[in-house]
Amino acid sequence: MTFEELPAAVVQTDSDVVAGFAHDEAQLVDRRLPLAVLSPRSTDEVVACLRAAASAGLAVVTRGAGTGLAGGANAPDGSVVLSTRRLDRIVAIDVEERLAVMQPGVVTADLRSAVADLGLFYPPDPGSVATSTIGGNVATNAGGMCCVKYGVTGDYVLGLEAVLADGRVMRTGRRTVKGVAGYGLTSLLVGSEGTLGVITEITLRLLPAPPPPATVVATFASLTDAGRAVERITGDGTDVSLLELLDATTLAAIDAHTGMGLAAEAMLLVQSDLPDPGPAIDSVQAACEAAGAVDVVVTTDADEGAQLLEARRQALPAMERLGDWLLDDVCVPRRSIVALVEGIAQVADDVGLTIGVFGHAGDGNMHPTIVFDRHDPDSLAAARRAFDAITALALELGGTVTGEHGVGRLKSGWLARELDPVALDVHRTVKAALDPHGRLNPGSVLS
Amino acid sequence: MTFEELPAAVVQTDSDVVAGFAHDEAQLVDRRLPLAVLSPRSTDEVVACLRAAASAGLAVVTRGAGTGLAGGANAPDGSVVLSTRRLDRIVAIDVEERLAVMQPGVVTADLRSAVADLGLFYPPDPGSVATSTIGGNVATNAGGMCCVKYGVTGDYVLGLEAVLADGRVMRTGRRTVKGVAGYGLTSLLVGSEGTLGVITEITLRLLPAPPPPATVVATFASLTDAGRAVERITGDGTDVSLLELLDATTLAAIDAHTGMGLAAEAMLLVQSDLPDPGPAIDSVQAACEAAGAVDVVVTTDADEGAQLLEARRQALPAMERLGDWLLDDVCVPRRSIVALVEGIAQVADDVGLTIGVFGHAGDGNMHPTIVFDRHDPDSLAAARRAFDAITALALELGGTVTGEHGVGRLKSGWLARELDPVALDVHRTVKAALDPHGRLNPGSVLS
Repeated sequence: MTFEELPAAVVQTDSDVVAGFAHDEAQLVDRRLPLAVLSPRSTDEVVACLRAAASAGLAVVTRGAGTGLAGGANAPDGSVVLSTRRLDRIVAIDVEERLAVMQPGVVTADLRSAVADLGLFYPPDPGSVATSTIGGNVATNAGGMCCVKYGVTGDYVLGLEAVLADGRVMRTGRRTVKGVAGYGLTSLLVGSEGTLGVITEITLRLLPAPPPPATVVATFASLTDAGRAVERITGDGTDVSLLELLDATTLAAIDAHTGMGLAAEAMLLVQSDLPDPGPAIDSVQAACEAAGAVDVVVTTDADEGAQLLEARRQALPAMERLGDWLLDDVCVPRRSIVALVEGIAQVADDVGLTIGVFGHAGDGNMHPTIVFDRHDPDSLAAARRAFDAITALALELGGTVTGEHGVGRLKSGWLARELDPVALDVHRTVKAALDPHGRLNPGSVLS
Repeated sequence: MTFEELPAAVVQTDSDVVAGFAHDEAQLVDRRLPLAVLSPRSTDEVVACLRAAASAGLAVVTRGAGTGLAGGANAPDGSVVLSTRRLDRIVAIDVEERLAVMQPGVVTADLRSAVADLGLFYPPDPGSVATSTIGGNVATNAGGMCCVKYGVTGDYVLGLEAVLADGRVMRTGRRTVKGVAGYGLTSLLVGSEGTLGVITEITLRLLPAPPPPATVVATFASLTDAGRAVERITGDGTDVSLLELLDATTLAAIDAHTGMGLAAEAMLLVQSDLPDPGPAIDSVQAACEAAGAVDVVVTTDADEGAQLLEARRQALPAMERLGDWLLDDVCVPRRSIVALVEGIAQVADDVGLTIGVFGHAGDGNMHPTIVFDRHDPDSLAAARRAFDAITALALELGGTVTGEHGVGRLKSGWLARELDPVALDVHRTVKAALDPHGRLNPGSVLS
């Protein structure tokens, strides 16, 4: 099988088209032009694409919607991009067993809404939910605001079909709730960012739809107070379905963007979707008040709750208005969130850039967002210094270099610092065993 | 490093001692005598043991408490057993971050009670909880009655330390709630039954202790009625923390054993540990009544609930009194539970043996328990036929050959039937990459 033998509809080499598939949303990562974009319409065509790439000795970078933030979909020179955009079919939704089978190119929001129509719930809700694909979510093990209660994408993946580097089709996992037959190959593929195989079908576990959530929004006169509230809420084990923190820089940017009249050192947004959320919400309110909240607003009205969440949803658009942005992703032990946010404020001072911090405080997973000008070499260099300092700080605090965005090309060097040398070596061993010619997304995850 | 160079306290070769470490609780699996039992007291000593085994060219079978039911700890001829019994220290419990670090030989019940003393909860509760070890639970990805709400052991493993076949020490995972840095090596080791490395330290995520549960016990005039109640309860998505089914054969055995006065075609035991379990319990009661339950007993008293659960806890002891027993473990889609239990009754008729079925109906994970006489060749042959028929039935129903006990030596042939050929080949590739000389538990998982 060669590229010439692939159906003409599958292969695009026009440079304008190819440029649109060349990279994801990551900053600080090289952007090159791949030789071609392959858009297979079936697992068989994925097999043909991988065989053709093997014949030609070319690297293959698999790409969902290109919303990644770690350069995992950035195609190196001399590679081909395999787009999953035409593999966009929901194959089956089994209401009784609460599972769904789909191709990787299904947009996450579409899947969520298709199952919601049947009274079911697919929790993972990465920021890119409206445009990113289930395949990309699985490949990066994406998270979102749901994770404090519902975990990450990988927690919902029951089984996969994947095409290996040599073109063989492998099925992993099961359709039952439980099962321990054999090695965790499903989990090995989840989060492997296209370096071990091309995922062509996904079986997801679903939940019954929860009731609409009740919401608490609290502002604080200091970040430390907000941090104390987070500690109380998570320490109590209160059943919350969302627990987000916004720092003063982010709030100021949102205020400038929306005129919402936000002015606080920190804000917490908390939801509970229990059938009777009263006790949980009371407990959150009490925790915020005990931590010295300036203002606490509570609503059990779902629409009002959605309006209150709007500040959080405007965080990235507000930061975007300030310039180029690098939406970073680190995760620390919950007790270190305040130290992380304070340390990042110090980094912002040191490098002379605006860095807003917001994110999933309930998980310790924060998104420092560095604002810079990529056309100004000094500003770019400062952004890079800030990025390195923040990542180093997360490791110092006992955290990880990525909570939910993945390693990609942006953090492959940092992965090597986070992992112990033997684990890094075992990564290379596994990669070499499954992709001996290093053809699948080379340079991503492992540099 | 040779065996002679190991500290004398680590190596035991006395045949009486060795015999006590030769096998687990599985039936229908060969039992041989290993050459020696190694009981290292530290990770360094585990390294020395594996290096000595490598020098001597011997296979190493790692063993926790030996409560396994799939022969995963059965030592083949010419092997050494590595016992984790002296690696029994809880290293740390971090209340604030809700995690615990321990050596593999810690007894599961001890860990559960140590964290309970601090207001925390480690959910996994395999039937062997009082004697099995966390290391064994991780190696088999053990489950229990908690799984319907709380998932399996692997859902709680944040990170591991493991010694590889060549004696290198690898650390995987993290101490944060979230993290996607690198491949899922933690998940790869979980459930790998000692075939990929020897686990020497485990970091577990914990939960806040839930309130004492409320309990519903319902009896039914037919298995179909009970199955319909299970469908209603799981279909509604009612938040239950336990959902167990006992069939008529098991109930009769329990009645004979305890004189509890049980006589029904099927019984369901259901619990909810929500802070306010009222609505969930009402919903369970309504589901049972709508399905035609003969009798429904409800209590919110924890002690009374524990007494009601006693029938379930007596299931295995009651079956044990009838003869030798093979406690099997299959998992099917929830909608197929009735078909599975009815099919097993047919198998029991066909082979002329008593087979009681009980287990985790909320997960579709049932434990058909075959009663036979292993000293009677005909009875043994019938048990083997029943075992094969039940396992084949589970696969026919879209299920898996093991829901929570593991593959071990008992089901390695069945694993090869369940997996697709490429996935099986990738299992062998991963095994060869991490243990090129096939020294770790050869013959287990992969035959």
